[in-house]
Amino acid sequence: MSFIKDDFMLKNKTARKLYEYVENLPIIDYHCHLSPKMIDENYQFENAFDLFLGGDHYKWRLMRSNGISEDYITGNADIYEKWCAFAKTVPLMIGNPMYHWTHLELKRYFDIDETLSSDTAKEIWDSVNECLKKDEFRAKSLIKKSNVEVICTTDNPYDDLKHHKNLKDFDVKVLPTFRPDLSKISSDITDRMDYFHGVGCRLSDHSIDEINDEMIEKIVFLGEEYAKRGWTMQLHLGAMRNNNSRMFEKLGPDTGFDSINDFPMAQGVSKMLDGLEKKDALPKTILYTLNPKDNYVLGTMLGNFQKAPVPGKIQFGSGWWFNDQRDGMESQMKALANLGLLSRFVGMLTDSRSFVSYPRHEYFRRILCNLIGKWVEEGEYPEDYETLKKIVQGICYYNAKEYFEF
Amino acid sequence: MSFIKDDFMLKNKTARKLYEYVENLPIIDYHCHLSPKMIDENYQFENAFDLFLGGDHYKWRLMRSNGISEDYITGNADIYEKWCAFAKTVPLMIGNPMYHWTHLELKRYFDIDETLSSDTAKEIWDSVNECLKKDEFRAKSLIKKSNVEVICTTDNPYDDLKHHKNLKDFDVKVLPTFRPDLSKISSDITDRMDYFHGVGCRLSDHSIDEINDEMIEKIVFLGEEYAKRGWTMQLHLGAMRNNNSRMFEKLGPDTGFDSINDFPMAQGVSKMLDGLEKKDALPKTILYTLNPKDNYVLGTMLGNFQKAPVPGKIQFGSGWWFNDQRDGMESQMKALANLGLLSRFVGMLTDSRSFVSYPRHEYFRRILCNLIGKWVEEGEYPEDYETLKKIVQGICYYNAKEYFEF
Amino acid sequence: MSFIKDDFMLKNKTARKLYEYVENLPIIDYHCHLSPKMIDENYQFENAFDLFLGGDHYKWRLMRSNGISEDYITGNADIYEKWCAFAKTVPLMIGNPMYHWTHLELKRYFDIDETLSSDTAKEIWDSVNECLKKDEFRAKSLIKKSNVEVICTTDNPYDDLKHHKNLKDFDVKVLPTFRPDLSKISSDITDRMDYFHGVGCRLSDHSIDEINDEMIEKIVFLGEEYAKRGWTMQLHLGAMRNNNSRMFEKLGPDTGFDSINDFPMAQGVSKMLDGLEKKDALPKTILYTLNPKDNYVLGTMLGNFQKAPVPGKIQFGSGWWFNDQRDGMESQMKALANLGLLSRFVGMLTDSRSFVSYPRHEYFRRILCNLIGKWVEEGEYPEDYETLKKIVQGICYYNAKEYFEF
Repeated sequence: MSFIKDDFMLKNKTARKLYEYVENLPIIDYHCHLSPKMIDENYQFENAFDLFLGGDHYKWRLMRSNGISEDYITGNADIYEKWCAFAKTVPLMIGNPMYHWTHLELKRYFDIDETLSSDTAKEIWDSVNECLKKDEFRAKSLIKKSNVEVICTTDNPYDDLKHHKNLKDFDVKVLPTFRPDLSKISSDITDRMDYFHGVGCRLSDHSIDEINDEMIEKIVFLGEEYAKRGWTMQLHLGAMRNNNSRMFEKLGPDTGFDSINDFPMAQGVSKMLDGLEKKDALPKTILYTLNPKDNYVLGTMLGNFQKAPVPGKIQFGSGWWFNDQRDGMESQMKALANLGLLSRFVGMLTDSRSFVSYPRHEYFRRILCNLIGKWVEEGEYPEDYETLKKIVQGICYYNAKEYFEF
Repeated sequence: MSFIKDDFMLKNKTARKLYEYVENLPIIDYHCHLSPKMIDENYQFENAFDLFLGGDHYKWRLMRSNGISEDYITGNADIYEKWCAFAKTVPLMIGNPMYHWTHLELKRYFDIDETLSSDTAKEIWDSVNECLKKDEFRAKSLIKKSNVEVICTTDNPYDDLKHHKNLKDFDVKVLPTFRPDLSKISSDITDRMDYFHGVGCRLSDHSIDEINDEMIEKIVFLGEEYAKRGWTMQLHLGAMRNNNSRMFEKLGPDTGFDSINDFPMAQGVSKMLDGLEKKDALPKTILYTLNPKDNYVLGTMLGNFQKAPVPGKIQFGSGWWFNDQRDGMESQMKALANLGLLSRFVGMLTDSRSFVSYPRHEYFRRILCNLIGKWVEEGEYPEDYETLKKIVQGICYYNAKEYFEF
Repeated sequence: MSFIKDDFMLKNKTARKLYEYVENLPIIDYHCHLSPKMIDENYQFENAFDLFLGGDHYKWRLMRSNGISEDYITGNADIYEKWCAFAKTVPLMIGNPMYHWTHLELKRYFDIDETLSSDTAKEIWDSVNECLKKDEFRAKSLIKKSNVEVICTTDNPYDDLKHHKNLKDFDVKVLPTFRPDLSKISSDITDRMDYFHGVGCRLSDHSIDEINDEMIEKIVFLGEEYAKRGWTMQLHLGAMRNNNSRMFEKLGPDTGFDSINDFPMAQGVSKMLDGLEKKDALPKTILYTLNPKDNYVLGTMLGNFQKAPVPGKIQFGSGWWFNDQRDGMESQMKALANLGLLSRFVGMLTDSRSFVSYPRHEYFRRILCNLIGKWVEEGEYPEDYETLKKIVQGICYYNAKEYFEF
């Protein structure tokens, strides 16, 4: 029997009932790192390692934690041996979201019920690889099979967006996101915004790895421009990147050597948002933090700048990166609920480089329904299924649809 | 049937049994922001909006989060339409304490069982307003109905306290709290303390929004004076106020634009308390934090300065403001229990501007009994009801009575 | 009937099954503060107060919180009256680990079933004191009775280690740990390492109460030397010591006046580890934090520096000092599991000055099994008992055995 049962993560009856309301809703993946080129070219994956581990440095880290040599991770070892090195690590991932993601990925895309381990490595390798030869497992089909309606990639302002343009007739909207490097804002930046806007961009993204006056000034400048265009501004706070100099020199960025920073952020974020609000130029904004100690800081920051007519104009972003797991998601959602309106939350995004990461939306939906189901069964909210349905469907789909206006 | 059932928040049998011990104990509300003038003049509320939302900026924030225009919150829209704007927001408050508070308030003061929503807005509006015409729903009666024994308001040192004096013969003790502005300490400050003492003041209060040497020096000076008089010193740490300049100019302070700060505080608080203890002049002290990341810092700070003969001389204040909800209260109480003696806790306060906020004491008592009940049923504390009764009754009433010596 | 039942802290069936796998495994106590002299001289305890409270300042703090005068704690009051002062405090320790530790200690060493309180103080006093007259309750026997295989004490680099040498033939390995004072690193420091190595030392220990460049430089220097010798480096971060000047002057350090600091540490720790890794000289390292807000910072820091061939080369240390309780342990283990590989965790240590603190390993094992049992019963990990057995046995014993190579 499968480890991924129908009631996976749904630990009470009400949760299971609520999940029925959201199970089949489309996905609006408003923030990811998929390669537009790979979508456009309808990439065909070479093998199971390429598919599941090709760009997924979350999994590389766990292999390193298991004492596996870099040869078997990003190096030149035999590809099947690399797969086996991953397979033998999987059973040790108890309590880690990767254990769940991996098995959701195997189940949802390949209908594989066995759990991955040294014992099943060969069988699963063969079975996945067999599938990957077929057209229905190329990039576009994987996306369509995942019931995705919109994808927002993350792009350099100077990208020509030719792949996005090519994808205009693809059934799934693939839109760019404007992610400027804050250290180099050129004079033509607003022209680039207009260009992006023309290709359907409605979102920007910034990584705020530290806060200082110069940074605040830049965000105020950019934010005003976003507001003019009706865009949403995303601020990702609290990452500390490329900690391992040796490995950075060897492998470059985004290879699994990032972690969580812990600088105080309340005053800086307040200044940024107030700087914009003072000019009546605060765009719709999503605040994400990598450090869960900031959940209460951001969860209360929202309330300072909420303003009609957009419900939930300032959003607290879903559990991000290292927080993209049961405890992290629950902690973010409880903070949001206790301090503001969970019902107005625009919900989940994958933030992923992997083409099989869409079950993370399923994972989120199950965890959300479980949390609310528990509240209902414990008498903290009435069994008013009409309202509950609106709330969970809103968080899983409709809120994002109305909020982003793609 | 009512959403507020007899076993509301009491999720196990032992919890329900423990709650019987505390349900009918009087309330010592040792920190609130009620207007002494309104009590003295036995204020009559104009309508349901005035009563429930008049000064309650917690609720205003949630309305703003729901995309409701300021006209319907602090503005000049028709008062019934303002009520309807609130009513339609309430069902979206899933997981928020305001959902619970609102229905406790409706149930306890007006015996209303329906949950508030657009559907019931009219009926509840009429029914509440009908009641408010009667004397038994004026300020004093609301307080007496709530089984309150002592109220400590929060007052300017230069207040003449005439309302407190007028209230000398009111069945409920209404005492002032000394809350100086730390930026302006005048030479007659100790005279003012004596004046307040004469009117029954036994508590001071300070908001510490940042910590620096000057601040520490002032607290050491004041603390010594409080100790001389046998007063308790309250330190409220970690608020960041008036974040939204536009709205501050428009509405002033305390209108729902405050949030949580995140400066490091361990060393500063230690210096303050040590500065006093060095002189053998540390008064009874209550430390509150707005940022739950500090719970373990304060929870261990207490232990550095506990001293005979007062049990629990240094207190960790109850979950405050944004933490005044199930998760926040549990987090504070678990920290206190793990790091010190929960049994010596002086318990709940409303910290409220609202005359119908006394059910927050009920809410606290239920959450406390539920937490302890769970420990007992899970075998973490024995079923020794004699001791358990002493513990929960102490936290809900007797500890405060002995500690403050009003 | 005893408060300490067979299923104490084991709140589900799977937990109880898992606990059977680890219940009888030996203990590797790789970090404690036992006195080698007392072990060597096979110390005989004078009475119950000497045994349970002699050096245990955790318990002193709780007595102070209960308003008990210093005379009855570290002072000269009659020793039985001191015991009674402790006994009357115990029932108030609801939710505190000391309540559990105390009763585990009474049960495991003295087979005492009653809970300690004023009512039972005399009977337990007599019964414990009677035992303490016997040889089987002297220091060595207490250790052997606890099924301890290795003890690592904490030692001054200039200690002659004569007691460790004397203990060479004791059935339990008693090894020194190298704990230099970072403010005074002399030129012969590496000679001292060699000396310690010769007596079996394989671990160093550092208390990092603040982080600055000088500190980082010193750690990089020392770490390289530890790496050469195959030692493990322990970094204890986040304590703030001797907060109460008056009591420090009176009683000195380690008397119960320490608490939790809250400085940002992410960048500093990253620099330390990167400084070593750049030179390919990073030893096996264990990072501990006293402030649970740092759990996610450290839990992700590990992943930046994991490296073959040692599985779990960089470790996240077990819930330390104030975190050595159910919530603290669970929080540390959940962070580790969510962010890395719990399966590779080297597990528990006592960090204690008390000879009857070994039940804290039992406490840890029960809490670990309970956590994993819950995951299994809630469908978050399969009922694969072969793997589960390996995982829990690894965390409780085998991982430490392989990691430290004593």
